[in-house]
Amino acid sequence: MTASPFIIVFALFDRITQLDFTGPYEVFWRLPGAQCVMASVDGGEIRADGGLTITNVQRLADIAQADLVCVPGGFGVIEAMGDASFVGEVRRLANGARYVTSVCSGSLVLGAAGLLGGKRAACHWAWRDLLPSFGAIMDESRVVRDGNLITGGGVTAGIDMALSVMADIAGAEYAQSVQLGIEYAPAPPFDCGRPERAAPQILRAVTERLDRLRADRYAAVQRAAQKL
Amino acid sequence: MTASPFIIVFALFDRITQLDFTGPYEVFWRLPGAQCVMASVDGGEIRADGGLTITNVQRLADIAQADLVCVPGGFGVIEAMGDASFVGEVRRLANGARYVTSVCSGSLVLGAAGLLGGKRAACHWAWRDLLPSFGAIMDESRVVRDGNLITGGGVTAGIDMALSVMADIAGAEYAQSVQLGIEYAPAPPFDCGRPERAAPQILRAVTERLDRLRADRYAAVQRAAQKL
Repeated sequence: MTASPFIIVFALFDRITQLDFTGPYEVFWRLPGAQCVMASVDGGEIRADGGLTITNVQRLADIAQADLVCVPGGFGVIEAMGDASFVGEVRRLANGARYVTSVCSGSLVLGAAGLLGGKRAACHWAWRDLLPSFGAIMDESRVVRDGNLITGGGVTAGIDMALSVMADIAGAEYAQSVQLGIEYAPAPPFDCGRPERAAPQILRAVTERLDRLRADRYAAVQRAAQKL
Repeated sequence: MTASPFIIVFALFDRITQLDFTGPYEVFWRLPGAQCVMASVDGGEIRADGGLTITNVQRLADIAQADLVCVPGGFGVIEAMGDASFVGEVRRLANGARYVTSVCSGSLVLGAAGLLGGKRAACHWAWRDLLPSFGAIMDESRVVRDGNLITGGGVTAGIDMALSVMADIAGAEYAQSVQLGIEYAPAPPFDCGRPERAAPQILRAVTERLDRLRADRYAAVQRAAQKL
């Protein structure tokens, strides 16, 4: 007897934040029977923030079906939300999937695909206030589950999200063995990874950097939301 | 006045554990003035465990100098330790670098390059007992600093390692802003990321999986150590 592979599709776009995707990837490829597929609208190569380039990327349209879809975020999310092909393929694959997941601003793409109406969802802390434009209920938790929709907060939350989903798919014991295998007993050097824990001047510095993107992201969300 | 870039070289080999490298990468590319370079012996493409392929990889021999060297681990570390070109290039770049770093079994490569003699070093928990073969002092900490040598434990320890080094290079406040930017307030679903915290049957399952590699890794370390 041969079981079908469990197909995990990472829906990628240019200027992803690569850790949004590579964190969950390191967990998910360890799932027994998993087949991880990286895919974008055009296939080929994807360039992440900072210049890291991933190759052997498939075309989303060539993928018949996914058991799990994972959408990362990144600076390119503005263009991704406005790309009808990308959003349409994410919607198509998500509608047939057992699990629909995102990390960071990837939940805005799920929103643009009309997948968040009435659902609780997470996002990077700086952008979560954009979720209600898509009819989503903003949730400040690091990993948010609403039915088969599991969304993570910013960047590093993808590792926590993936281990949670792994526990659901393969059981808590297997997920624990993966967590031990990747020695995930984090010890951050500072306690400042959420806005309410950071010192005021640190929060101000990051908010000021991100505020330069705010008008463009807000407009992109409004445009995407109007199409729903 | 233009400052020289701060050159960060990730020394890659086939079958790296990609999160060993992509975790620190997500931190380091945010360093002001940083230029991140991915390099291997042959350049071109590098295939990580699980199939993820990274392209635009430079040749190590073409890199004149590095300010920081980072060596990840992975299943390919056996071949990497035995590759005189790879080990030689890591030694050359490390000898001129301000910071020499590794993640996971990457410290075994530093050992093979003769860089760990008399130094405290970390490694993935399952392989740290191999460090003394290189004259290193095994340290069970998640991030270990000995002079300009900063080594991390298994896989996810690379994020903690990189933020610590970032604090040293750019100051604690800047490192905190990066930590907040990548929302690094980890919340693992289980408390099992180190062998002493995992349930006995989880530890046994992972150890049994890894023990299949033990004879080969042990032999590779002995061969590499004899060349020093």
